[in-house]
Amino acid sequence: MTYRKKKNEYIIIIGCGRLGSHLATLLSKKGKSVVVIDRDQKSFERLKDSFSGFTIEADAIEKDTLLEAKIDKADVVVTVTNDDNTNIMIAQIAKIIYKVPKVIARLFEPSKQSIYEELGIETVCPTMLSALELKNTIVENELED
Amino acid sequence: MTYRKKKNEYIIIIGCGRLGSHLATLLSKKGKSVVVIDRDQKSFERLKDSFSGFTIEADAIEKDTLLEAKIDKADVVVTVTNDDNTNIMIAQIAKIIYKVPKVIARLFEPSKQSIYEELGIETVCPTMLSALELKNTIVENELED
Repeated sequence: MTYRKKKNEYIIIIGCGRLGSHLATLLSKKGKSVVVIDRDQKSFERLKDSFSGFTIEADAIEKDTLLEAKIDKADVVVTVTNDDNTNIMIAQIAKIIYKVPKVIARLFEPSKQSIYEELGIETVCPTMLSALELKNTIVENELED
Repeated sequence: MTYRKKKNEYIIIIGCGRLGSHLATLLSKKGKSVVVIDRDQKSFERLKDSFSGFTIEADAIEKDTLLEAKIDKADVVVTVTNDDNTNIMIAQIAKIIYKVPKVIARLFEPSKQSIYEELGIETVCPTMLSALELKNTIVENELED
């Protein structure tokens, strides 16, 4: 099957905590097709009314869950559970087994970043983003290093 | 005493977790005078060798700790413990009692942001920053709302 959907059209988000739910709502508002997976049904209560995608209550480290979410059709997979190891494991599966074009993982521990990058997995680290934002707020009007 | 130090020169960071330690190192590299307060001596091990500031092992909700850190001379106070309520409490003390010119608090729960803003306390929310970063990475080449 060589059919490819329009770029970035179908997005799977794994983990519906604060970050996952907020991102799902933002992307849904942008007209993207979004599926959110979480083990805990209650976590979906975080999704705003403006979220128009689908939810799957299941463990994303199970192969059946990813197949149910049609991971082989996904343009983007974002892993944002609260556990770095879970995020990297699912990101690897998405990238290596299902050849998902764009895989992004949240990581809490910045030192693990190089492991992800070697695998072609993009990362977002809330700690690093926040530290830079704070530094720029405090060190105003100075040129960056 | 009307003496004012050069703007943003003396910075107190409360909480030496991943964010606090990373920020302390960044600001120290920029030549700022930085004091980091944490209850746990071990947390200071996170500070890089390039950190040239001071550390205080104590509970920052104790008045004596803040006085030891010379909060009355601080230009900036940043509260980045892992607890939103602790962050807002210390931020209030810094802003209202010690009239610190710039007070910034990390908050995990975005819904509390308005409480801080009413008090003149700036906030940084790792969840919001990360969600926007991810959204912008995914929704490339599109104009922002």
